[in-house]
Amino acid sequence: MDLPSHRARLACRAGDAGQTAGIAPGFVQGNLAILPERDAAAFHRFCQLNPKPCPIIGISEVGDPRIPALGIDLDIRTDLPRYRVWRDGVPVAEPLDIMEHWRDDLVAFVIGCSFSFEEALIADDIPIRHIECGVRVPMYRTNIACSPAGPFAGPMVVSMRPLRPADAIRAVQITSRFPSVHGAPVHLGLPQSIGIRDIARPDYGDPVPIHDDEIPVFWACGVTPQAVIAAARVPFAITHAPGLMLVTDLRNKNLAVL
Amino acid sequence: MDLPSHRARLACRAGDAGQTAGIAPGFVQGNLAILPERDAAAFHRFCQLNPKPCPIIGISEVGDPRIPALGIDLDIRTDLPRYRVWRDGVPVAEPLDIMEHWRDDLVAFVIGCSFSFEEALIADDIPIRHIECGVRVPMYRTNIACSPAGPFAGPMVVSMRPLRPADAIRAVQITSRFPSVHGAPVHLGLPQSIGIRDIARPDYGDPVPIHDDEIPVFWACGVTPQAVIAAARVPFAITHAPGLMLVTDLRNKNLAVL
Repeated sequence: MDLPSHRARLACRAGDAGQTAGIAPGFVQGNLAILPERDAAAFHRFCQLNPKPCPIIGISEVGDPRIPALGIDLDIRTDLPRYRVWRDGVPVAEPLDIMEHWRDDLVAFVIGCSFSFEEALIADDIPIRHIECGVRVPMYRTNIACSPAGPFAGPMVVSMRPLRPADAIRAVQITSRFPSVHGAPVHLGLPQSIGIRDIARPDYGDPVPIHDDEIPVFWACGVTPQAVIAAARVPFAITHAPGLMLVTDLRNKNLAVL
Repeated sequence: MDLPSHRARLACRAGDAGQTAGIAPGFVQGNLAILPERDAAAFHRFCQLNPKPCPIIGISEVGDPRIPALGIDLDIRTDLPRYRVWRDGVPVAEPLDIMEHWRDDLVAFVIGCSFSFEEALIADDIPIRHIECGVRVPMYRTNIACSPAGPFAGPMVVSMRPLRPADAIRAVQITSRFPSVHGAPVHLGLPQSIGIRDIARPDYGDPVPIHDDEIPVFWACGVTPQAVIAAARVPFAITHAPGLMLVTDLRNKNLAVL
């Protein structure tokens, strides 16, 4: 086995990896959320109820750091470049691995990421502004309430890409084929309608210019689970560090439902 | 055979029919364009090159007034409520039938109509403003050039429906399934980008209100062929009269490609 995705994970294991955007093209990357069993069931229900921001593409057994469906030798404790450890809803550490934090009661959730659908958009010659600009995608808290489950509740976080209207229509068609990586946009054109007051000031990531012949198009974002983990102030959780995702052996093209 | 569509055509034949919107729900209605053989080939190429405004759903043999694929006993000379006869690009008559205008060299083209996709939108609980208001859909000439063929050329005409952004996204998904009745929108959100200066003054049909939480969504429109027939100043043509369409025995639901 010598997949680029496998090599990317081995680099993480060796402590020698950075931002994963552009790493192992064609392979699915994922957001990570790890919770103790006592909170994991409610978090799982939250994802089930909110599949657009939280599409689950992999889940571990309780206490088992492997997720064979995402990679034969994958070890969720070492195979991301960097992790974020949360206590009571506050990030307290960003270690390179979580060997010392792992426990027998932890459950790992891997959640689809927009990198997969961005690859499909680029393959269709639709330009992605934040990639062109070399910055992080702009993300915003909205007034769209997620469906709550147990302690997990809060607003949906969305990512934004400015597109010309004809490209926006094509982007709806393309991303509709990929429900497991956020699927179709949740909004377009009227940011104020979803509670975004200043499009130039994203809540996460970096601002990007919107040209006169473009409209902002918004997709549900995998930052949503981190936001609700923070808001729920759960005693203990681990996520990926921003932009430092899990690289899996799944192929983006295989996620297409049509 | 006692289909509602057949009864609708019999009423036309009896000279006893008006606007066809809402007639024979579930059945496909079509725009009509009839041209002499010498212009029909170029018109056919025009439709081939511009499938969004001019999706052909039926075509007759030269000089044959029947189109069995659209209705077993269909007679294109009598089965619409009213026709419009054109000479040198100018409408000169609006007869109830075209028996006296029929010639051995005429070819009839039936072109898909937005009624079919509106039915799918309404079935998905997406409200259609001009139907709620009881007026004709607003239509606009754009700066989107059709691909020319022979004498046929000109701008695409579009119809507009105001929708809330989430409904607009859903409408893209739904209408993408129906390429033979104009398919996905061609534009949304920025009317000035496609050369529409005043959204409150449509070039055809009636204006409708757009609410603050809505964006205008534009579909290619079956009025486009009439506009290019007028612009081409072809010596002779026959179309349907506005809003008075051919009711066929095809089912809207059978047009879905997915």
